[in-house]
Amino acid sequence: MATLFDRHRRLLDQAVAALGDRGFWTPFPEVPSGKVYGETAREDGQAAYAARLGGAFALEGHHESHRVGAEVSPWGPALGILYPAAEAKTLVAASESAGGAWAAATPETRVGILIEALVRLNAMSFEMGNAVMHTTGQAFPMAFQAGGPHAQDRGLEAVATAWVEMSRAPAQAFWEKPQGKAAPLLIEKHWRVVPRGVALVIGCQTFPTWNSYPGLFASLATGNTVIVKPHPGAILPLALTVAVLRDLLAEQGLPRDVVLLAADSAEAPVTKDLVADPAVAIVDYTGSNAFGAWVRANAGAAQVYTEEAGVNSIVVAATDVFGPMCANIAFSLALYSGQMCTAPQDIFVPRGGIETDEGHKGFGEVAAGIAAAVDALLADPARAAGVAGAIANPATLERIAAARGLGRVVRDSAPLAEGRSATPLIVAVEAADEAAYGEERFGPIAFVVAVDDAEDGIARAAALARRKGAITAALYDTDEARILRAADAFARAGVNLSVNLTGNIFVNQSAAFSDFHVTGLNPAGNASLTDAAFVAGRFVRAMWRRPVAA
Amino acid sequence: MATLFDRHRRLLDQAVAALGDRGFWTPFPEVPSGKVYGETAREDGQAAYAARLGGAFALEGHHESHRVGAEVSPWGPALGILYPAAEAKTLVAASESAGGAWAAATPETRVGILIEALVRLNAMSFEMGNAVMHTTGQAFPMAFQAGGPHAQDRGLEAVATAWVEMSRAPAQAFWEKPQGKAAPLLIEKHWRVVPRGVALVIGCQTFPTWNSYPGLFASLATGNTVIVKPHPGAILPLALTVAVLRDLLAEQGLPRDVVLLAADSAEAPVTKDLVADPAVAIVDYTGSNAFGAWVRANAGAAQVYTEEAGVNSIVVAATDVFGPMCANIAFSLALYSGQMCTAPQDIFVPRGGIETDEGHKGFGEVAAGIAAAVDALLADPARAAGVAGAIANPATLERIAAARGLGRVVRDSAPLAEGRSATPLIVAVEAADEAAYGEERFGPIAFVVAVDDAEDGIARAAALARRKGAITAALYDTDEARILRAADAFARAGVNLSVNLTGNIFVNQSAAFSDFHVTGLNPAGNASLTDAAFVAGRFVRAMWRRPVAA
Repeated sequence: MATLFDRHRRLLDQAVAALGDRGFWTPFPEVPSGKVYGETAREDGQAAYAARLGGAFALEGHHESHRVGAEVSPWGPALGILYPAAEAKTLVAASESAGGAWAAATPETRVGILIEALVRLNAMSFEMGNAVMHTTGQAFPMAFQAGGPHAQDRGLEAVATAWVEMSRAPAQAFWEKPQGKAAPLLIEKHWRVVPRGVALVIGCQTFPTWNSYPGLFASLATGNTVIVKPHPGAILPLALTVAVLRDLLAEQGLPRDVVLLAADSAEAPVTKDLVADPAVAIVDYTGSNAFGAWVRANAGAAQVYTEEAGVNSIVVAATDVFGPMCANIAFSLALYSGQMCTAPQDIFVPRGGIETDEGHKGFGEVAAGIAAAVDALLADPARAAGVAGAIANPATLERIAAARGLGRVVRDSAPLAEGRSATPLIVAVEAADEAAYGEERFGPIAFVVAVDDAEDGIARAAALARRKGAITAALYDTDEARILRAADAFARAGVNLSVNLTGNIFVNQSAAFSDFHVTGLNPAGNASLTDAAFVAGRFVRAMWRRPVAA
Repeated sequence: MATLFDRHRRLLDQAVAALGDRGFWTPFPEVPSGKVYGETAREDGQAAYAARLGGAFALEGHHESHRVGAEVSPWGPALGILYPAAEAKTLVAASESAGGAWAAATPETRVGILIEALVRLNAMSFEMGNAVMHTTGQAFPMAFQAGGPHAQDRGLEAVATAWVEMSRAPAQAFWEKPQGKAAPLLIEKHWRVVPRGVALVIGCQTFPTWNSYPGLFASLATGNTVIVKPHPGAILPLALTVAVLRDLLAEQGLPRDVVLLAADSAEAPVTKDLVADPAVAIVDYTGSNAFGAWVRANAGAAQVYTEEAGVNSIVVAATDVFGPMCANIAFSLALYSGQMCTAPQDIFVPRGGIETDEGHKGFGEVAAGIAAAVDALLADPARAAGVAGAIANPATLERIAAARGLGRVVRDSAPLAEGRSATPLIVAVEAADEAAYGEERFGPIAFVVAVDDAEDGIARAAALARRKGAITAALYDTDEARILRAADAFARAGVNLSVNLTGNIFVNQSAAFSDFHVTGLNPAGNASLTDAAFVAGRFVRAMWRRPVAA
């Protein structure tokens, strides 16, 4: 009987090759189309999602002392789903119990199971899209893509990277040392991959699967057991993921508890208990800098991989495509209402304006051009909802209200027709107003910042990235030498830079197998998706050796 | 003109291949022979060492507010060498200043320079052997090997591993995403290696080069600048290393301050100031668990790689070569008087004795056999000094004195004819006496521990490794199934196991390019020499991308 590893070997090999090439590659189609996913996939996914509403989420054999669940869709209705919940120490003990069998499984066995899980998750991408839509507030097309295929890509990327790392040293070698005229010393050596132990994955509300899959799949592939701690507002997408993994593990004769769900509530959170547990050896965290700092300080000897927050910038130096530039920036600001870790917040524009294909544009004209492009993008209500989605957290609305007072409002924020929504607020400020634009203001809040010139804008954006963190930067410029200098400056600040984007590619986008997401060099996170460093420390190699019998 | 990278490309390729094969490989001959190193190499090295005694160590252009140096050879004389010293903040600032040029050098440039440095260090292995001998107390043959070629091997291993890591992703790729019937999106992407910044290497007294070279060369290869902080008792070997690197950097038109020496004194140590400096982004540390814990707790956001202490065990379950077994264990106990991080301390022996080729041996007979083998090994004074060396730190003698009271003395420790010396103390204890054998007692102190049976010994040794740390374990057994179970148990505890060693191979030995030194899974250290995890986190990748012009 072919194993799951055999079945998925070709896919694994392609993924490994893609990691080296870093061109475009994905096995999981991003288009929510019946032609790809089956004629009834859309309706089936919708029905599967609807069937879960108002009920008890089934996780066979899962530890459970009580039930929790208070998810409310940013689009309106409460989900009413109740998940099994247990104390941190119960989950950690169960995870440890399952550890022996999972560690003893070969890397091939684990990798085969994990790719199969991703393939099954891919098949249920429509259900996942609904789950992500109604927990994050993303519009369905984005929820499908980011929560489904793109997250699966990142999961597969982690599995493939782990496979490469585990395969780098042989399982056995002979060490033959010459001894002059005497017979050589001959030693046989045997190595094995040994996992660190219990891993914890702490998810966020806005990208519950995309941001969790890398750590989840990297830890599992390398033999660790994983406790998945979803944000209380976005449990369903990770509960679905955990269910797929647990069922598959059971099918393969392995303990379901290799993967556990740590559902909790905002009122009685379990995260700190989990992080502080000495048995937790790995923590993957996505969230705020403040709680990230707590995690880093309280995780003890555990390895901690974080994606935290930052302030992403655009520098507008010059352009020969003014209209398309404004449209591209407008889309980046409006997409999911700025609730992406890659969304730009600060747009640095020379106080004296810039040169464009439409002639000189003053600072105010550039700001107005971007504002007008946002207006145009969101003019049609249906399209507006499809781009901007809904606001995940009500606190974001308060943040928008407060931000209005931070400068001159170039474009005001307003609700859309659907859901808890808010279009981008754009505020013009001076470079000296760092108190306004120098902090992350999560949500559809952007600043157009007047700077001395392009070099000043680049220097300020890079310095801000170093100090506050940043995941993305963008530059519009026509001066090749300055573009290369900007590439140097942002690289030193640990920020990936996009130059002169127009059309259907946006600074917010980060593609698995090509873009490393976050560098790990500035306060926006200490890890990168998915480089060798993200995976290699999740396991160690242990050897035994002995002389070869004569 | 051929670059240093071109010159050493073949050596690099061989090193990379060896990393994958993990058989025996070294480019640096370990035999201190004139046939290999030149007819006059021994005398030249001795003379070069002698010429440095009682003088000011020259480090051209090095920051210097005062001079320090109080090294005293464990073999007798004071070295009387004075080294340039400066405040921590001065060194950190100088290191930062040198960072731009070194980061801007290509990986090829850096790797070429570092291999050239190792080749130059290899050529001066006799001088280094003297320097290591008279700071560590190692006998000359070991000081030559461990301080010279074996350390150079570990340095090259780190450079090769760094090269592999830096080369894993391309410098450029084209990302071409299909867009249905429209023209594909085509993006060009450019990546570069970005170092973390200033790295600190904290050396130990007993293996000043062997334990420092991996971190030093790994950090340098990946573009970080390095401050080398030697143990105040063993400055010379690292000062020589720093001098070679600084001169070579200057030859290549790069700032000497890419590598700095942080010499200090026991009375006015600078280590804590360096560790706590927020500009220090990487710390490599070899030393005690107590100070290691301080480093880990106070290094802030810096990455910390440690080798700390542990309690290494041997389990004697059965043997069909009783005499050679005792001889092998005796050598491991006596070699450099147990001052190796890989030296065994606890020998677990069944209370009821073991089966051997010489018939049943009671617990006392096994202990006596090992003691007699130590006596035989050290019977000849010249050979004894050549094996046991001298005691690096006078505190070790006090520790021996105290350990005599911990059980029944099977073999007493005594001075040898040369240097500050002490032969192995062997004390018999019961398994219940964990207060005696369950702590690291650094130096020539060993316990023969009476356990219920072999399984009990394996379980206790593995549990001790988990709890207190261990780098090595050894087993003598004739039961294949039990050997495999022991391999499992020690692997789970993160310990490399040697089975049935006799003859000219010892549990203490760890060969670059084959043995991973320390697993990183137990308290004996959080890093492994040299796996991908040791290197991959020392740099990040930053990208810039733009649409390809139509």
